[in-house]
Amino acid sequence: MANITKRVSWSSLCEDRAPGEGTALLDDTPGARRCRRQEFSGGSLFRIGRLSTIDLDEEVTSKEETLKQPNEIPHNEKLLSLKYESLDYDNIENQLFLEEEGQMSPMGFKCVEISRWVICGLIGFLTGLIACFIDIVVEIVAAYKYKIVKRYIDQFVVEGGLCASVILWAILNSAFVMAGSLVVAIFEPIAAGSGIPQIKCYLNGVKIPRVVRLKTLVVKVFGVICSVVGGLAVGKEGPMIHSGAVVAAGVSQGRSTSLKKDLKIFEYFRRDTEKRDFVSAGAAAGVSAAFGAPVGGVLFSLEEGASFWNQMLTWRIFFASMISTFTLNFFRSIYNGNPGELANPGLINFGQFESGAYKLYEIPIFICMGAVGGVLGAGFNALNYWLTIFRIRYIHRSYLQVIEAILAAAATATVSYILMYCSDDCQTPGEHQAVEYPLQLFCPDGQHNSIATVFFNTPERSVRNLFHNFPGSYNSLTLFLFTFTYFFLACWTYGLTVSAGVFIPSLLLGAAWGRLIGNLLTNSGVSIFADPGKYALMGAAAQLGGIVRMTLSLTVIMVEATGNVTYGLPIMLVLMTSKIVGDYFAEGLYDIHIKLQSVPFLGWEAPATSHSFTAREVMSSPVMCFNRTEKVGTIVDVLSNTSAKHNGFPIVSDFTTNEPGRICGLILRSQLIVLLKHKVFVERAQLKQRKLLLKDFRDAYPRFPPIQSIHVSQDERECTMDLTEFMNPTPYTVPQETSLPRVFKLFRALGLRHLVVVDNENRVVGLVTRKDLARYHLGKHGLEELQLAQT
Amino acid sequence: MANITKRVSWSSLCEDRAPGEGTALLDDTPGARRCRRQEFSGGSLFRIGRLSTIDLDEEVTSKEETLKQPNEIPHNEKLLSLKYESLDYDNIENQLFLEEEGQMSPMGFKCVEISRWVICGLIGFLTGLIACFIDIVVEIVAAYKYKIVKRYIDQFVVEGGLCASVILWAILNSAFVMAGSLVVAIFEPIAAGSGIPQIKCYLNGVKIPRVVRLKTLVVKVFGVICSVVGGLAVGKEGPMIHSGAVVAAGVSQGRSTSLKKDLKIFEYFRRDTEKRDFVSAGAAAGVSAAFGAPVGGVLFSLEEGASFWNQMLTWRIFFASMISTFTLNFFRSIYNGNPGELANPGLINFGQFESGAYKLYEIPIFICMGAVGGVLGAGFNALNYWLTIFRIRYIHRSYLQVIEAILAAAATATVSYILMYCSDDCQTPGEHQAVEYPLQLFCPDGQHNSIATVFFNTPERSVRNLFHNFPGSYNSLTLFLFTFTYFFLACWTYGLTVSAGVFIPSLLLGAAWGRLIGNLLTNSGVSIFADPGKYALMGAAAQLGGIVRMTLSLTVIMVEATGNVTYGLPIMLVLMTSKIVGDYFAEGLYDIHIKLQSVPFLGWEAPATSHSFTAREVMSSPVMCFNRTEKVGTIVDVLSNTSAKHNGFPIVSDFTTNEPGRICGLILRSQLIVLLKHKVFVERAQLKQRKLLLKDFRDAYPRFPPIQSIHVSQDERECTMDLTEFMNPTPYTVPQETSLPRVFKLFRALGLRHLVVVDNENRVVGLVTRKDLARYHLGKHGLEELQLAQT
Repeated sequence: MANITKRVSWSSLCEDRAPGEGTALLDDTPGARRCRRQEFSGGSLFRIGRLSTIDLDEEVTSKEETLKQPNEIPHNEKLLSLKYESLDYDNIENQLFLEEEGQMSPMGFKCVEISRWVICGLIGFLTGLIACFIDIVVEIVAAYKYKIVKRYIDQFVVEGGLCASVILWAILNSAFVMAGSLVVAIFEPIAAGSGIPQIKCYLNGVKIPRVVRLKTLVVKVFGVICSVVGGLAVGKEGPMIHSGAVVAAGVSQGRSTSLKKDLKIFEYFRRDTEKRDFVSAGAAAGVSAAFGAPVGGVLFSLEEGASFWNQMLTWRIFFASMISTFTLNFFRSIYNGNPGELANPGLINFGQFESGAYKLYEIPIFICMGAVGGVLGAGFNALNYWLTIFRIRYIHRSYLQVIEAILAAAATATVSYILMYCSDDCQTPGEHQAVEYPLQLFCPDGQHNSIATVFFNTPERSVRNLFHNFPGSYNSLTLFLFTFTYFFLACWTYGLTVSAGVFIPSLLLGAAWGRLIGNLLTNSGVSIFADPGKYALMGAAAQLGGIVRMTLSLTVIMVEATGNVTYGLPIMLVLMTSKIVGDYFAEGLYDIHIKLQSVPFLGWEAPATSHSFTAREVMSSPVMCFNRTEKVGTIVDVLSNTSAKHNGFPIVSDFTTNEPGRICGLILRSQLIVLLKHKVFVERAQLKQRKLLLKDFRDAYPRFPPIQSIHVSQDERECTMDLTEFMNPTPYTVPQETSLPRVFKLFRALGLRHLVVVDNENRVVGLVTRKDLARYHLGKHGLEELQLAQT
Repeated sequence: MANITKRVSWSSLCEDRAPGEGTALLDDTPGARRCRRQEFSGGSLFRIGRLSTIDLDEEVTSKEETLKQPNEIPHNEKLLSLKYESLDYDNIENQLFLEEEGQMSPMGFKCVEISRWVICGLIGFLTGLIACFIDIVVEIVAAYKYKIVKRYIDQFVVEGGLCASVILWAILNSAFVMAGSLVVAIFEPIAAGSGIPQIKCYLNGVKIPRVVRLKTLVVKVFGVICSVVGGLAVGKEGPMIHSGAVVAAGVSQGRSTSLKKDLKIFEYFRRDTEKRDFVSAGAAAGVSAAFGAPVGGVLFSLEEGASFWNQMLTWRIFFASMISTFTLNFFRSIYNGNPGELANPGLINFGQFESGAYKLYEIPIFICMGAVGGVLGAGFNALNYWLTIFRIRYIHRSYLQVIEAILAAAATATVSYILMYCSDDCQTPGEHQAVEYPLQLFCPDGQHNSIATVFFNTPERSVRNLFHNFPGSYNSLTLFLFTFTYFFLACWTYGLTVSAGVFIPSLLLGAAWGRLIGNLLTNSGVSIFADPGKYALMGAAAQLGGIVRMTLSLTVIMVEATGNVTYGLPIMLVLMTSKIVGDYFAEGLYDIHIKLQSVPFLGWEAPATSHSFTAREVMSSPVMCFNRTEKVGTIVDVLSNTSAKHNGFPIVSDFTTNEPGRICGLILRSQLIVLLKHKVFVERAQLKQRKLLLKDFRDAYPRFPPIQSIHVSQDERECTMDLTEFMNPTPYTVPQETSLPRVFKLFRALGLRHLVVVDNENRVVGLVTRKDLARYHLGKHGLEELQLAQT
C-alpha cells in the first residue's frame, strides 16, 4: 500500500505567494504570483515542451534521491499526494447524453428507476449473505479451536506443563493469522484493515485503485475470517462495510473485471455518479448487517458520502440496509434452528437493556466517561500514528508484514495466557449466564477463570457479557489488567496486514473500563449505582467515539444496537464529549490513516478563516486547453505527457497564442482516449464509420486504457478531431474573485472534479481541482497549506 | 389565507414556444421565442415604461374581472402563484461580509460555533417545554370534561332522557372548538392546520408570511389545546413541528417582532441561511417531542429542507432533538410523580411491542395492508381536496369558518354518541388494562361499552389501546363502524380553521381497520395469527403513509415510537407499498395543500424528461440590470414599479442600450432598500457619513420596509449610488445552453434564489428564479407547465 517515495518540497517554490492579496476585481493577470504546480503545469500548448523537461529532470533526480535516501520520512500529514485521481460526480451532459435522454420515454425512466430498486435489493441481499457466511464460518472454526485449546489446557493444568498449551495456542492462532495475512499481502494489499478509510475516500470522491474489485472482496472475506479466528484483537464489523461497497460496485455495473464477465445489463449505470449512489447503498447495507442498524447505515453513508441529499436515493439506501439486516437475520435464524425468528438483526447485538434505566444524576458521570474515552481514544490514535509511521518506514515488504502479523498473533495469545495465569478471579456461573467454554485453570471445582471467558469467546460475545453479566461477575483488578493490556494489543493490531476492523476491539476496551468504573461505583457503597452494565455500555460508546470520532451515525448505530431509544441522550452526550475532548489532542483514527496516505480528502466546509482566498489564488494555472476541432497529434502529445497528467481539458473558442480563449466546453481524458481508440477523426467521417454512442464510453468505463496502448500512426496524427459532440458544453464556472468557501461549496455540493475559473469575458484563466481545495486546512496555528507531491 | 383572485391565463401568450428547440450553441438571441412573464418583465431600463404600462392596464382589467366573476375557480393545482417570495439560502459574499469575516479571529469563529450549539440547546429545551405544557393542559382539561360528561351520561342512563347528555356533550365540545377557532380566525389564520405544509415550504425556500412569528405560536398552542379538548378528530403532534420552528426562528434571531423586543444578541445569525438551519433544528425538535423520535426528527428536517448535508449541522439538529425529547420526558416525569423516570420520550408512545414477534409469512399480509392504506389514504386525500376547493370558494369569511368548526365539533360528538348508543359491544376490563373513564351505558354491571373507550380517551391513548389491548377487546363490527365514521370525520376536520394535526387521526383510523383485519385473521381459526395488535400497528403505518406519503423519516418515526428496531422491515415495506399505491391515485395530503396554495415548491430533481429544455427557455428575460454606479432616481423608479416586483438585479459593466452588459455582481431589493434608507449616495460621501456596516442590514432583516415608505427628494434623485461594495460580486452563473436538470441541480443544491444566465461573453441574458423552475412538472401525460398568476 505504502511505497517509499521522495517528498518533493514545493514550499520554497511557493514562498513568494501572499494569501489574501490580489483580490482587485478587474485584475486580469491570472495566476501572476502563483507558483506552477505539476498537475496542470502544461498551460497553453507551446509551453509544454519547456515545462515537461523540467518535470522530467525532477523525476530523474527524485528517483536517484529515493535510492540514496531510503530513510527519509516519506509520509506525513502535511503532504498531499498527486497520485490519487478524483471521481467525477457531475454528469457529463454532452450531446450524446442529451440525445439518449431525449429518446427515452417516461416509461423508460420508470424502468431505470425500477432497476435501481432491484439492484439495491440485490446489494442488500448479497451483503447480508456475506455477513451471514463470515459469521457462521467464524463461529464454527472458532468453536473448534476453543475446544481443542481448552482440552489441552484442562489436561495440562492437571498434568503440569502448561507451557506446552500456551505454545499450542500461540501456534494455532499464528497459523490462522499467517494464512490471512499472506493472502492479503500477496494478492490484494488494499484488503488490509477495515476498509472504512478507503470507502470514506471513495464516497468523498477519491479514486482508490482496486478498492471495489471482486478479488478484494474475496481476499477480505477470507482474511477477516482468519484474523478473527486467529484471536487477534479485531472485529469483523468494519470489513462488512467494505464488503457491502464491493458488492454494490459489482452488482450495479453488471460485470466483473476479476471474473472477466460482462452480463451486459445495467449499462445505464456505468458512470461515476450512479456507481457512487450504489456504493453508498452497499456501505449502508454493510453497516446495517454489522450492527443491525439500518438507519445508522443510511446515516453513515450520508455522513461520508452524500453531497446532496436526495429523498429517493436515501429511501433506496434504506431499502438496501433493511434487506441486508433481514437477510442476515433470516439465514442466521435458520442456522440457529429457529427459522423466521427475527430478533437478532446484526452481527453484533448489545442485548436488551432495561428501558429508561438511567437516572438524571448519572448523566454527569456519563459525560466524564465520555471525556475519559476521548483521552484514551486520542492516546490510542497517537500511538497508532507513530506505529504507522514506523511501519511505512521499515515494514513495507510483504514478508515483513506477514511476520509482524504472526508475531502479533503469538503475542496476543501469550499475553492473554499470562493474564489468565496470573488472575485469581474465580466466578461461579450464574443461572442465566451460560459460559460456553469455561476454563477452570486453578479455580475451585464448579468455578471458572473470569478473564478466560473474555479470551475464550468471540469478541462480540465478550462485549455482550460485559454489558449484561450480573454485578460482581468481574473483579476490578481483572478489568484493569485487561484494559491495560488490551489497549496496547488493539493498538498494535490496527494497521497490521490483515483484514480486520477496529469497532469491536474499541467497544470491548471501552466496555472493560466502563465496567470497571461501574464496579467502583457499585462498591462505593452508594446504593443508587446498582448496575455496572450500563456503565460498560457508556464506556464502550466513549472509547469507540474517542477512536473513530463519528458523530450522528455512530450515535444511531449504538442506539440501534442497544435496541432502546431512551439511551439515545446519554449515548449522544458521551459521544459528543469524547469527540470534543479527543479532537483536542489528536484526530480520528480513520482521518489519521487517510492523511498518512496523503489522500486529497475534502471536508464539509472550507476552513472558516479562508474567506480572504479567492479562486485566483487557489486555481491551477495556466490551463491546458483544446480547440473544438483539434489536431490528433496535439491531443496525443498532451495526453502522453507523463509529467502533467491532466484529466480535464477546457474546450475554448477564439484560441490564440496571446490570450486565453473563451470557455465553450470541457472534455475528460477518458473521453479523449475512447475517441482516439475508435479513431473518430473528421477525415474518416466519409468512410461511413458508425457513429460513436454513449455505449462505447460505458463499455470502456471505468478502466480506460492508457494513452500508450493506443497506436496512432503518423498519418493519423495529421487528422483532426471534432470534440463538440462529446464535450460537456456547460461546465460550471466561477469568476476569479470568488472566495474559497464559495468555490468549495459549489465543488462539494455538486461533487465536481474540475471547476473552470474564468475572467469577466468568460476566458479560461484557471482550473480548480480537488487537490487545489484540499490543500487548505485549519491547523493549530490558523490556516495551513499542505504541500503537493508525487508520492 | 386564500383570497379569491383572478386566474391570469398566460398560456395563450406562450403558445408559440416549442420546447426543445433553440439549443444551438452559439445562438445569441436570448429569449427570442420566449414569452414575457410578469416577474422579470422589466428588462433593460429603457423598456420599463412601455411594459409597465401594459402590466398596469392588465392589473386594472384583472381587478374588474375579479369583481365581475367572484365564482370563478381561483385555485387549482395547475397554477403557480407569483405572490410568494423566496428565501435566499446563498450567502451574499459582498465586500462588507468579506471584511467582517477577515477581521474575525479563529477564536471568533469558535464563539459563533458555540453560540450555535447554545441556541440549538435552547430550541430543544423550549420546544420540549411547550410540548409538555400542551400535553399537561390537555390532560387536565380533558379529564375534567370526561368526568362531567360521564357523570351526566351515567345519571341519564338510569333516569332516562339521554338526549340531554348528548346536547351537553356537543355544547361542551363546540364551546372549546369555538374558542380555538375564533382565536385562529381572528388573530392568526396561518396558525390553522398542522403547520407542516408551511414548514415544508419554509425549509424548501419559500417565504410564507407570518409563519414563524411568536404570535402564531401563541395562537397555535391555544388553538391546539382547544381543538384536542373539543374532541375533534385531531392530534397535537403536527402542530408541535410548527411550534418548534417558531421557537427556533425566535431564539436564533434574539428578538421578537410581536413583543417588539430586540435582545441584541445572535446578530450574526440574522440572515436566511443561518435562520433556515435553526428552523430545521426547531422542526426536528418538534418531531422529536411529538413522537419521542429524535432521529426521525433529524431525518424529517433533512428530507424537507437540507439541500446540502453538513455533518456539524446535522449533529446540532440532533442535539436539539435530543434535548427536546429529554425535556418533555423529564418534566412529564415530574408531573407524573416519578421524577427522573425517562421511559416515555414523546407525546405519543406506541408502547412496548414484543421483540421480533412477526413471522416471515406475515410479511405478504402486511404488504397487502400497505396497499389498502394507500387506497384509503388516496381516497381521504381526494375527498379532502374537493372539500378544500369547496372551502376556498365558499367558506372564506372568518365567521363562516368558525361556524364550520363548531358544526364539526357538534357533529363529532353526536356521531360518536350514536355509535356508542347503537353498539352492544360490552367488555370486561382485563387485569392489566385499566380503563380510565369506563362508560357502562346499557352494558351489564362490571362491563363497559367498548366503543366509548375510544371516544372517552385522548386519541393517543386510544391508539395505544388498539395496539396493545388483548385479543377480543373489540368486536369486528365496532371496529368497522368506527373506521367508517371516523374516516369522514377526520377528512372533514382536516382543513378546518383550527390548529390541529392529521397524524393521530390517521394512526387511529389505521389502527382501527388494522385491528379489524387482525380480528378477522384471528377469528379465521388459523392459530398462527394470534395477536391483532401488530396488525393494528401496520394498519396505522399504512394509513398514515397513505395520507402523508413521507418516506424514510416516517419509517424511522414509527420505528422509534414503537421502540423496537425489528419492526423496521415490515413498517418500511408497508410504508413503501402505501406510498406507491397511493401515488398512483392521488398526491400526498401536504402536497395537495401546498399545490392548492399555488406555492412554487421545488422537488428533489427536475422532471426526468426535461433534458431537452435549456436555461434559455426556462429563464425570465429580458432582465432588469443596474450599473455599478447608478442614479438614485432610476433605482427608486425600478423598485417602485408595482407591476414587476423584481427582487434580484444583476449589476453589469459596459452597459449600453444596444446589447446586454457583462455580469459583475448581483444585488437584492432588500439591500437597495437599506442603502436608500441610509442615503448612501456618492455625493454625500464628503459629509463624513459613517460607513454602512453589515449590522445595518442585519437590523433591518427580515422585514425590510417597502420602497413607498422611503422618502427620496427630487434633489436626491439626481444623486448616484455606488453599489460595488454591497453587491455580491460573484453570483453563480450558467450559460444559456445548460439543460434544465443541470440548472435545477445547481439551484437546489446551493439553495439559490436567483441564477444569472449569461451568453458566451458573460453578458446577462436572463435570470432563473424559483418560479421558473417550479413551473415544470411531470404529470400523467408527460411534462406539464404550470401557469403563473398573481393570485
